[in-house]
Amino acid sequence: MIVAFCGLGKMGRAMAANLVLQDFGVRAWNRTPGKAPPGAVECRTPLEAAQGADLVVSMLADDAAVESVVFGEGGLAQAGILHCGMSTISLQLTRRLSESPGFVAAPVFGRPEAAEGRKLWICAGGAPADLARLKPVFAALGQGVYEMGTAPQATLTKLCGNFLLAMMIEGFGEAFALGEKGGLDPEVLSQTLLKILFAGAPIPTGYAGRVARTDFEPAGFALPLGHKDVGLALKAALELGVPMPLASLAQDRLAESLAKGRAQWDFAGMAAVIREAAGLPPRR
Amino acid sequence: MIVAFCGLGKMGRAMAANLVLQDFGVRAWNRTPGKAPPGAVECRTPLEAAQGADLVVSMLADDAAVESVVFGEGGLAQAGILHCGMSTISLQLTRRLSESPGFVAAPVFGRPEAAEGRKLWICAGGAPADLARLKPVFAALGQGVYEMGTAPQATLTKLCGNFLLAMMIEGFGEAFALGEKGGLDPEVLSQTLLKILFAGAPIPTGYAGRVARTDFEPAGFALPLGHKDVGLALKAALELGVPMPLASLAQDRLAESLAKGRAQWDFAGMAAVIREAAGLPPRR
Amino acid sequence: MIVAFCGLGKMGRAMAANLVLQDFGVRAWNRTPGKAPPGAVECRTPLEAAQGADLVVSMLADDAAVESVVFGEGGLAQAGILHCGMSTISLQLTRRLSESPGFVAAPVFGRPEAAEGRKLWICAGGAPADLARLKPVFAALGQGVYEMGTAPQATLTKLCGNFLLAMMIEGFGEAFALGEKGGLDPEVLSQTLLKILFAGAPIPTGYAGRVARTDFEPAGFALPLGHKDVGLALKAALELGVPMPLASLAQDRLAESLAKGRAQWDFAGMAAVIREAAGLPPRR
Amino acid sequence: MIVAFCGLGKMGRAMAANLVLQDFGVRAWNRTPGKAPPGAVECRTPLEAAQGADLVVSMLADDAAVESVVFGEGGLAQAGILHCGMSTISLQLTRRLSESPGFVAAPVFGRPEAAEGRKLWICAGGAPADLARLKPVFAALGQGVYEMGTAPQATLTKLCGNFLLAMMIEGFGEAFALGEKGGLDPEVLSQTLLKILFAGAPIPTGYAGRVARTDFEPAGFALPLGHKDVGLALKAALELGVPMPLASLAQDRLAESLAKGRAQWDFAGMAAVIREAAGLPPRR
Repeated sequence: MIVAFCGLGKMGRAMAANLVLQDFGVRAWNRTPGKAPPGAVECRTPLEAAQGADLVVSMLADDAAVESVVFGEGGLAQAGILHCGMSTISLQLTRRLSESPGFVAAPVFGRPEAAEGRKLWICAGGAPADLARLKPVFAALGQGVYEMGTAPQATLTKLCGNFLLAMMIEGFGEAFALGEKGGLDPEVLSQTLLKILFAGAPIPTGYAGRVARTDFEPAGFALPLGHKDVGLALKAALELGVPMPLASLAQDRLAESLAKGRAQWDFAGMAAVIREAAGLPPRR
Repeated sequence: MIVAFCGLGKMGRAMAANLVLQDFGVRAWNRTPGKAPPGAVECRTPLEAAQGADLVVSMLADDAAVESVVFGEGGLAQAGILHCGMSTISLQLTRRLSESPGFVAAPVFGRPEAAEGRKLWICAGGAPADLARLKPVFAALGQGVYEMGTAPQATLTKLCGNFLLAMMIEGFGEAFALGEKGGLDPEVLSQTLLKILFAGAPIPTGYAGRVARTDFEPAGFALPLGHKDVGLALKAALELGVPMPLASLAQDRLAESLAKGRAQWDFAGMAAVIREAAGLPPRR
Repeated sequence: MIVAFCGLGKMGRAMAANLVLQDFGVRAWNRTPGKAPPGAVECRTPLEAAQGADLVVSMLADDAAVESVVFGEGGLAQAGILHCGMSTISLQLTRRLSESPGFVAAPVFGRPEAAEGRKLWICAGGAPADLARLKPVFAALGQGVYEMGTAPQATLTKLCGNFLLAMMIEGFGEAFALGEKGGLDPEVLSQTLLKILFAGAPIPTGYAGRVARTDFEPAGFALPLGHKDVGLALKAALELGVPMPLASLAQDRLAESLAKGRAQWDFAGMAAVIREAAGLPPRR
Repeated sequence: MIVAFCGLGKMGRAMAANLVLQDFGVRAWNRTPGKAPPGAVECRTPLEAAQGADLVVSMLADDAAVESVVFGEGGLAQAGILHCGMSTISLQLTRRLSESPGFVAAPVFGRPEAAEGRKLWICAGGAPADLARLKPVFAALGQGVYEMGTAPQATLTKLCGNFLLAMMIEGFGEAFALGEKGGLDPEVLSQTLLKILFAGAPIPTGYAGRVARTDFEPAGFALPLGHKDVGLALKAALELGVPMPLASLAQDRLAESLAKGRAQWDFAGMAAVIREAAGLPPRR
């Protein structure tokens, strides 16, 4: 099977490399050339990548990048083949992409290490026949697929998930600032509560640990991406008529973090403004 | 070892019964008489229970109950023996109780079933010698003890923990309302995100499931208790100078729930007002 | 002077009629025909209205309407004459319109009665020469003009103003719910505080009175317009990096109001959800 | 008429001096001695001041001061005469004071200059006969009296009023931060919106001006007093079951201000943390 792969950032390049290793033919495109993994054919436009491929996988930064790759000059809109969009994009753009047949939304949970190790979790939505065709691709990229219904529903699942990450950072940030001002060691507090309440599950433990240690650099998942994703959840919420005050609170925290020049920090770094509001230094 | 046990509600009665089963002598007191478990000696005042006992364990509803049992007529203040307070009370009252020697705060995580099954998690704080003396008591009541430092620090740990439960209900409530208005089945959404993000840990899974199914009655942990505990976290935050907007948000949700007559509901029922704000019925 | 007037809703029609009365030639266009005031020439497209006119005034519902009238087929973009946009639109669209010379933003404060009575307040921004040319038009429509700098700055002034209206409704809503549950008559409370704190100024008094009396219908300024305007303030805030939690709170209140089917209510009706959260009926 | 006056801070001393000037006999007490205005008889305890007086007026800092003056040693509780409490205190303490006959709550609006100039606004509540007896006192102290019903209702009116001041600071802070980041001069923005929306009413204009100019010192009404009063509103709200998210937001702003060491600043200085959250310096 030949896959056109559009978007070779940290995530995309690791995923494209895995497809090559799993014996897929890969025709790769990236806005900045020279990023194709060994064994892939580098192409000059998304459309050129799609030509001769069985399907397209895209893994791009945001709505603007996807719009350009699909609807721009030399874009995929003219290719007329199955397009599996794995980027985290807006509900609105997902809906627009779904207006044409052959679009599957399959956003992923996992950082670049998970992409390299084929440990992504994939939330997929689209026509059942299209999802069936993508099974081998998903198997080459991740450790499991959750079928969520339509493409917009898959996108919404992902937006809910990233919102829950922001929830944890906010909650840990507030709790640990309270503990610290009450004389507790935030790391001991974190380890205690994580075991009691979360049975040591890796993702909450990871975020709680970063917040407790104020370990905000280098970024695993960068703060501006978290800002973008919480913004997408709020945009969906505005359209669907769902007040989400916790999401608004997280967005305000993230906006403050960016206004203070913390674009290089990890998503967990949004807890620094919680510390500052309590009169604590941003990092211990 | 003879233990005076004050407070025989759902939690306290199960704990006192376990002490009897583990061969402790138990002198039991409760505001409403007739609640002592088989094998315990029922007493008429806290002070009477303390007389002849090696130490006191108290498990009461709130600050007012503890104040009355300690500082009221026939209260423990005159007993002069080790007092292990396992109730969830305010930081302020914990500090006041700590002014006299021989006070240990040891609030617990776990519902009545956990109390019955000796599965409580205990967060203990006080003088090291006092904590050492309590080891056999803790072993008879729970599955593990976390030593958090001073008594106020143990209380603060518990308040942070219950705040994180409120965080989860708020987050799940918002996320699942968004999903539901976007056409997702909240239970499928819940199960998916719980596995991906929380590795199926029991406590988040339990709360997420209740929120997704709008399964708010009968109460496990009753909503007014959650309201009380979030209020205690905010009272501590006010004193320590820590803005906790997520805790304020949860408190508002809980106040709205009570204003709507939902005192019989589970803590998770606070998600119903999130649903209503989105134009959904309080229960599906 | 001949004015092309685009948009003949409640506000626009009153304004166009005033221009006729003040001896301007008026070439009028509206999406739904038949709305031109007596003495105006009705035209079939915005461009036709602009042909032969000295300048264009537009008064439309929202960004989408303005985009269609300017950039759509038969739109003003091809007219090449001075365009005074008096609608409340986004900062982003104002900036885009300002990329071509000859655009002035001049959003207004005032309800349809104020438009009829030439009592509007106009916040204008654009090139000084363009503002000078518009003086007679502004004099025919309002009671005063505030020159705010550039067109985006005029728009931002208007968005700040409407946000402050939402602030008042939120504040009055919370205060009067508190008073009512404490046994005060909300109208007496309202009248007292309005005199002491606001010296009886008409706009706060008007909103406070509506909130106190729960006088939410018929709408003066309709709730969905308030929702739109608070949303525009938040969109500007997101772009400029300004956390505005009070605006987010108001947006949540308005979203809840709309989710509950209150699109016919006045902006002040957002206070009903504040009442409901306190366990009070939406209207007294 | 002989008045016992308890509490000779900035406000109280100016009020007591006015009573002397208006030919009242004044027996004055203050925790720190030596503050009695010329013509007043200085007393050593509140009870001594009350002996031989027709009534007591108290003007104290907070609940703790009032509790001490009434229920402490040498306190007013034993005096058995009419007590007019003009301090801003909690609803809870007002209710407790109202349990004995002869208590009137009469909190005031106005800064020390207004106290000196007999320009206070007085919100009074209590038994009609008691209010009638106080008429000459009120006439000597203020420019007007609003009778609000019971003593708790008078207190609640005052708490609502100070909450509305916090509302304005929050709203102006957000709006002017938005304007400033959008290139507007905050002072021009402030003056424009104050005229259009508030008809130049002095109190909103005063707060808006301070926020726009970031004119936070010296304090007129000090930030910790604002923090105390918003806290009292929230305490009342908690008891009465009224979610007040805007009050919680203001309390968080004020807590952050105090955590940053701004206890000397004016109430309006709470806008500095709004600026910081937007990446602006606390003062321009």
